Amino acid sequence: MRQSQLFATTLREEPADAELASHRLLLKAGYIRQLAGGIYTYMPLGWRVLQKIESIVNEEMDRAGAQRLLMPALQPLELWQASGRERDYGPELIRLRDRHDREFALGPTHEEVIASLVGNELQSYRRFPVTLYQIQTKFRDERRPRYGLLRGREFLMKDAYSFDTDREGLDRSYQRMYEAYERIFTRCGLDYRAVEADAGAIGGDGGSHEFVALSESGEDTIASCSACGYAANVELSDVSHTATGDACPRCMEGGLQLCKGIEVGHVFKLGTKYTEALGALYLDANGRERASLMGCYGIGISRLMAAVLEQHHDASGMVWPAAVAPYAVHIVIVAIQDARQRECAERLYEQLRAHGIDVLLDDRDERAGVKFRDADLLGLPHRIVAGKHAQAGSVEYVAHSSGIREVLTIEEAAARVVARCGRRFAP
Amino acid sequence: MRQSQLFATTLREEPADAELASHRLLLKAGYIRQLAGGIYTYMPLGWRVLQKIESIVNEEMDRAGAQRLLMPALQPLELWQASGRERDYGPELIRLRDRHDREFALGPTHEEVIASLVGNELQSYRRFPVTLYQIQTKFRDERRPRYGLLRGREFLMKDAYSFDTDREGLDRSYQRMYEAYERIFTRCGLDYRAVEADAGAIGGDGGSHEFVALSESGEDTIASCSACGYAANVELSDVSHTATGDACPRCMEGGLQLCKGIEVGHVFKLGTKYTEALGALYLDANGRERASLMGCYGIGISRLMAAVLEQHHDASGMVWPAAVAPYAVHIVIVAIQDARQRECAERLYEQLRAHGIDVLLDDRDERAGVKFRDADLLGLPHRIVAGKHAQAGSVEYVAHSSGIREVLTIEEAAARVVARCGRRFAP
Repeated sequence: MRQSQLFATTLREEPADAELASHRLLLKAGYIRQLAGGIYTYMPLGWRVLQKIESIVNEEMDRAGAQRLLMPALQPLELWQASGRERDYGPELIRLRDRHDREFALGPTHEEVIASLVGNELQSYRRFPVTLYQIQTKFRDERRPRYGLLRGREFLMKDAYSFDTDREGLDRSYQRMYEAYERIFTRCGLDYRAVEADAGAIGGDGGSHEFVALSESGEDTIASCSACGYAANVELSDVSHTATGDACPRCMEGGLQLCKGIEVGHVFKLGTKYTEALGALYLDANGRERASLMGCYGIGISRLMAAVLEQHHDASGMVWPAAVAPYAVHIVIVAIQDARQRECAERLYEQLRAHGIDVLLDDRDERAGVKFRDADLLGLPHRIVAGKHAQAGSVEYVAHSSGIREVLTIEEAAARVVARCGRRFAP
Repeated sequence: MRQSQLFATTLREEPADAELASHRLLLKAGYIRQLAGGIYTYMPLGWRVLQKIESIVNEEMDRAGAQRLLMPALQPLELWQASGRERDYGPELIRLRDRHDREFALGPTHEEVIASLVGNELQSYRRFPVTLYQIQTKFRDERRPRYGLLRGREFLMKDAYSFDTDREGLDRSYQRMYEAYERIFTRCGLDYRAVEADAGAIGGDGGSHEFVALSESGEDTIASCSACGYAANVELSDVSHTATGDACPRCMEGGLQLCKGIEVGHVFKLGTKYTEALGALYLDANGRERASLMGCYGIGISRLMAAVLEQHHDASGMVWPAAVAPYAVHIVIVAIQDARQRECAERLYEQLRAHGIDVLLDDRDERAGVKFRDADLLGLPHRIVAGKHAQAGSVEYVAHSSGIREVLTIEEAAARVVARCGRRFAP
């Protein structure tokens, strides 16, 4: 992509009202724009990051045997009345009436819809187990939307749901998703902890884990034991009164450490709460009607983009992990009037693109200072500068994470980047 | 994918209330399920078709230089008041109030949002032209939703918007999109016509074309001239009173032919209607404030799936064009108890998947009649039957579109399918 044509404007001023680094940087670098409180447009750069995350999620859901579908955002309110959640959710549930005065909710999550769907489709025990997922825009009318993408009113979510006929099956489905989540967050470059959690308003009695990206700016507090590995959200009653240094409630030996984090994923064993409420019944091997056992598994896709940034930035801007960077390589032409610089840059641009590598070429007619400041802000993993060495057919290569600079020929630079990117960044 | 695990149920009964072939077949074959009037879940098979269409659209938008982003579904109602469309849209526009009593619309289209966005971002003539697009769930409260995916209340749409500084630029941007649309519909296997159209409620004065898939079940009527190639929607005033055989209003020589069709795409030259109303101004080379010239370009992605089916089905079921089929190959094991049949099928399944080909393997414990009826209903392009010839290491290969049957060895069958699919079906 030629940056002269890219629909992205970097801001010179610090954005007002952006407390967190992720919020500030996403606005400043032109990755997102706010339309209303907690409601954002994902600009081309932001959209590309979401796509990278979505690809990783798709691959891992597929590997875990989950099947993708797409459910509606508009949900008849009766479904929420049937489960009792219309009341529990309160004003966070966005409601509306259609022209015939029928009531709908704008889905913040889809337990009711999918339990009803699976109840209609799978009427014999032979058809189980199944795990289904979607990646979809969700709606939640937060009282006080804030922190940019961390607490929005319209957001992208991956929600998966498993259905089994017995407790062991649910345990296996849950474990498969748990492991898929570990792979997803690791691949996204996150430092995270999986901690025991409170099931909250979603209900269910079978256990629940939160995946928490460690960050001082997070709203969650987790307690972890250095001796036995126990970790839990402090909302959980048995650790809710601790403070740092208290004895671990599991092993009674280690001391608890507290740290802050951002919830990026949550897995729940729901049991029969929704399948019973929605009448999602199947016939077992003896011809008896039974409610299937359900699990649900969520990842905030847009929130994950912000959480990655909370962990990966420096004083100058973003520092994207390779797997989720909007482009792998940033080629900067220092002086666009210099034919030799343009030629070196264009040759590299074509060579790298021929290898299926995502490249952003800064071909703008701007001062070098502006270009370098923007490159620091955008934070792509590999940077190649076509500048003073171009006369001799060379460029400067900088790996963003290490900051190490090398002067290389065009062929050397191309080979270096291809070796480090491989085909991982192919579209 | 193993069909024993696929979340899809074929119906034995004809679905009630489904007048059109596409609606009936999508329900019967388990591609979609209705949640409420005009509101559908895309089941895994239906979702896969949408993904194939989306890939084609993405490739052609990319080739035309359009950049992808994602705008919110929740739009402040003031934007619609600013353009005057709140009134024009009437009850089809779904409105809601948030917990702070602020009014929002659920986006049926995004002219206001994007004009406002571009006005904020691009303040100099040097930043133009730009074409942006998104693929997103849209909402329209149809008075009488019907015909399945053809007239729904929640649907998937690709909407693109171009911004230029002069009329010639708008003409070029429009032409590029027009040509991209031709490629998209051709690749989806549609027999279509691009016809002159009425701009309707969306407004603008610069011209408009509809892309209409020819179909007796369509709601649009188009008139075309066999002599000069003129074609128009009969809603357009200058052909609104014709009937078959009338003289062409363009060349005055040829006779007009009428036929029915389904609108699958629509392109508009909007001019400054929205950019003026939303104050989307830039500074020209002389430092004067001007409103940019806008074009908008829509494709109903979910409607397109139905339109393809209206043209591609037979008495037994669907007949998917290769480019948009949910799977390229259907391997049917006639008798799952037969070890030799299973072995032949599994070998082929692995060989084809290793070539990146999407394969559905019918490994269900069902009667042969059920399996063949379902295979006819699902309508995948290539079918391979592991049946009575399996004992001799052979299978029966059937190309669905021609119906020609051949007995081939496993290696021959694999080679045949690979040659015909190439890598086009790779994930």
